Amino acid sequence: MGQAAADRISVALGTEWLVDAHGCQPDLLRSVDAIGALFGRIVEALDLHPLGEPVWYSFPDGGGLTGILLLRESHLACHTFPERRFAAINLYCCRPRTEWAWRVGLAEALGAEQVIVRLVTRGEAADGPAD
Amino acid sequence: MGQAAADRISVALGTEWLVDAHGCQPDLLRSVDAIGALFGRIVEALDLHPLGEPVWYSFPDGGGLTGILLLRESHLACHTFPERRFAAINLYCCRPRTEWAWRVGLAEALGAEQVIVRLVTRGEAADGPAD
Repeated sequence: MGQAAADRISVALGTEWLVDAHGCQPDLLRSVDAIGALFGRIVEALDLHPLGEPVWYSFPDGGGLTGILLLRESHLACHTFPERRFAAINLYCCRPRTEWAWRVGLAEALGAEQVIVRLVTRGEAADGPAD
Repeated sequence: MGQAAADRISVALGTEWLVDAHGCQPDLLRSVDAIGALFGRIVEALDLHPLGEPVWYSFPDGGGLTGILLLRESHLACHTFPERRFAAINLYCCRPRTEWAWRVGLAEALGAEQVIVRLVTRGEAADGPAD
């Protein structure tokens, strides 16, 4: 392994939480207030730094909403599917953060019955030569 | 497995591409024009539908930029780290899409030397009772 490859492997540029929340309360998944309050709880708990206000889009006919908040640490996004009682949340942090208690927090904020949390490290190059 | 669990497992609400691009040209990683053009290529190639213009944040002192584009299909995000020649791209699509040729496209758009693509399915509940 050359120095260039070694240097690349030493790089890790953030962690991303992919959080799937099932069994949520549909009304809460259509509510900018509810998802906005959830964003606020996550921001406060993890000491994140928003770059402005969240951007929202509410789909017509009760079809759920999308919210994205730019952070100094990268971004927080939520897509909801009220008809499936499902919310998908992404939190990308380019600096280390203590993990939030996603299961408890999403049960409280959205009534989630089942929460699946996946953690992905970003910015680690594969071992070996560049493809 | 009860009917409720079976129903949950049948649900898949999107695919997310987590794309790590290494060895990019630093100047391109600081350029809203370059990243905006990349967004345009991805949107056109995958027949995505933007909900407005991208939101950009450029970090001071050449520190890279963040761009997020809300889509009818969910979102496209890019965070760049010029000092590490690295860009992290997320594309979340709530509807099936043909995969883009990420390696070729990012070599052309950003000069990427190594591209790591991970695909994550969202919205599939775990087997077994809710935790």
